[in-house]
Amino acid sequence: MTQSPEELLESLQWRYATKVFDKTRKLQDSDWETLKQALTLSASSYGLQPYRFVIPTAPELRMKLRDASRGQAQVTDASHLVVFAARNEITPQDVDHFLESLAATRGLPLEKLEGFRATLTGDLVEGPRATIAGHWAARQAYLALGNLLASAAMLRIDACPMEGFSPTQYDEILGLSDYHTVCICALGYRSPEDAYAQALKFRFPAEELFVIK
Amino acid sequence: MTQSPEELLESLQWRYATKVFDKTRKLQDSDWETLKQALTLSASSYGLQPYRFVIPTAPELRMKLRDASRGQAQVTDASHLVVFAARNEITPQDVDHFLESLAATRGLPLEKLEGFRATLTGDLVEGPRATIAGHWAARQAYLALGNLLASAAMLRIDACPMEGFSPTQYDEILGLSDYHTVCICALGYRSPEDAYAQALKFRFPAEELFVIK
Repeated sequence: MTQSPEELLESLQWRYATKVFDKTRKLQDSDWETLKQALTLSASSYGLQPYRFVIPTAPELRMKLRDASRGQAQVTDASHLVVFAARNEITPQDVDHFLESLAATRGLPLEKLEGFRATLTGDLVEGPRATIAGHWAARQAYLALGNLLASAAMLRIDACPMEGFSPTQYDEILGLSDYHTVCICALGYRSPEDAYAQALKFRFPAEELFVIK
Repeated sequence: MTQSPEELLESLQWRYATKVFDKTRKLQDSDWETLKQALTLSASSYGLQPYRFVIPTAPELRMKLRDASRGQAQVTDASHLVVFAARNEITPQDVDHFLESLAATRGLPLEKLEGFRATLTGDLVEGPRATIAGHWAARQAYLALGNLLASAAMLRIDACPMEGFSPTQYDEILGLSDYHTVCICALGYRSPEDAYAQALKFRFPAEELFVIK
């Protein structure tokens, strides 16, 4: 049930940042459910999942977001759009909710998690990283984006990760206050007209990227 | 050659943050080459790949890093360790080098990329994001981490992404100056003694994580 190295690399080679989506092709419900599960299964620091995946579906909303994205057509033309919104800060209530949910899943008394609570609080709520918790949360969201891109490629679903939009306008349009938009990803199927699909993939060579010590 | 949704989710379910590695099991060279290629194929904003993957191999170096990681054994016991080091800032030289490499790969005259140069420079070198280019680069590194975790899972290679270390000590030990350590990932094979392998995976339910608009 594993994938061969060749198949894995073929999938990752197949992937590219799709510029032109086929407007007529939508993800099947079952594929979208798979990608939602893949996003849910993303790793995150402490398992805190400090983000929301906002899915704008209404066409007029997608058009507003496109206007806040330099008019880029992927925002409206792709089958689905995922807006990665990271938590602004980690509150004691976040920690409570997380630990209660974790204890319930694992059938543990909450007292067993007091040491973990102290660690989380001492780090992200009151500790040295409390003031940069929004940045920390954004990094976790990007980890989820990386997982999504790889997962979509395995299923031969096209994607376009994007940063070319106004985060503050996104927050306003989507009514986000405790979270902030950090990146978006369009999902669907490439149009045969997308010339970028044929462009040679450029990557720095291993000798530059890897530093063996 | 694609993976079925069931196989993809099985791989992502199989993955967990491995706490105890089997010290006696090393990655095969060919698997490590595959993971290096997967890391190389990670998506990044503009394709700039603003990071280095530092691979400490000397046992005494791994031990020093373990000391800078609260003594966590994964740092020395896993087969391989990847240190994700993000670029501190994006310089005009970075842009030059990138565009020259890109032009060479695609067989384009450099003049064809002047518009792209203006965009990059206007954003990350002199523009509004220049002062936070280190944060931006860190996010790209986390995207690569997400890709690595998914890729390793497909190959049934265990991994432990970690933030519990001193970034400044890592930078010093590894002699990094133009890059800064943002996260690390141990790779190898789980020990049968790792109780965490059996722990029930906790995730927030879709109704909490996803916000449909």
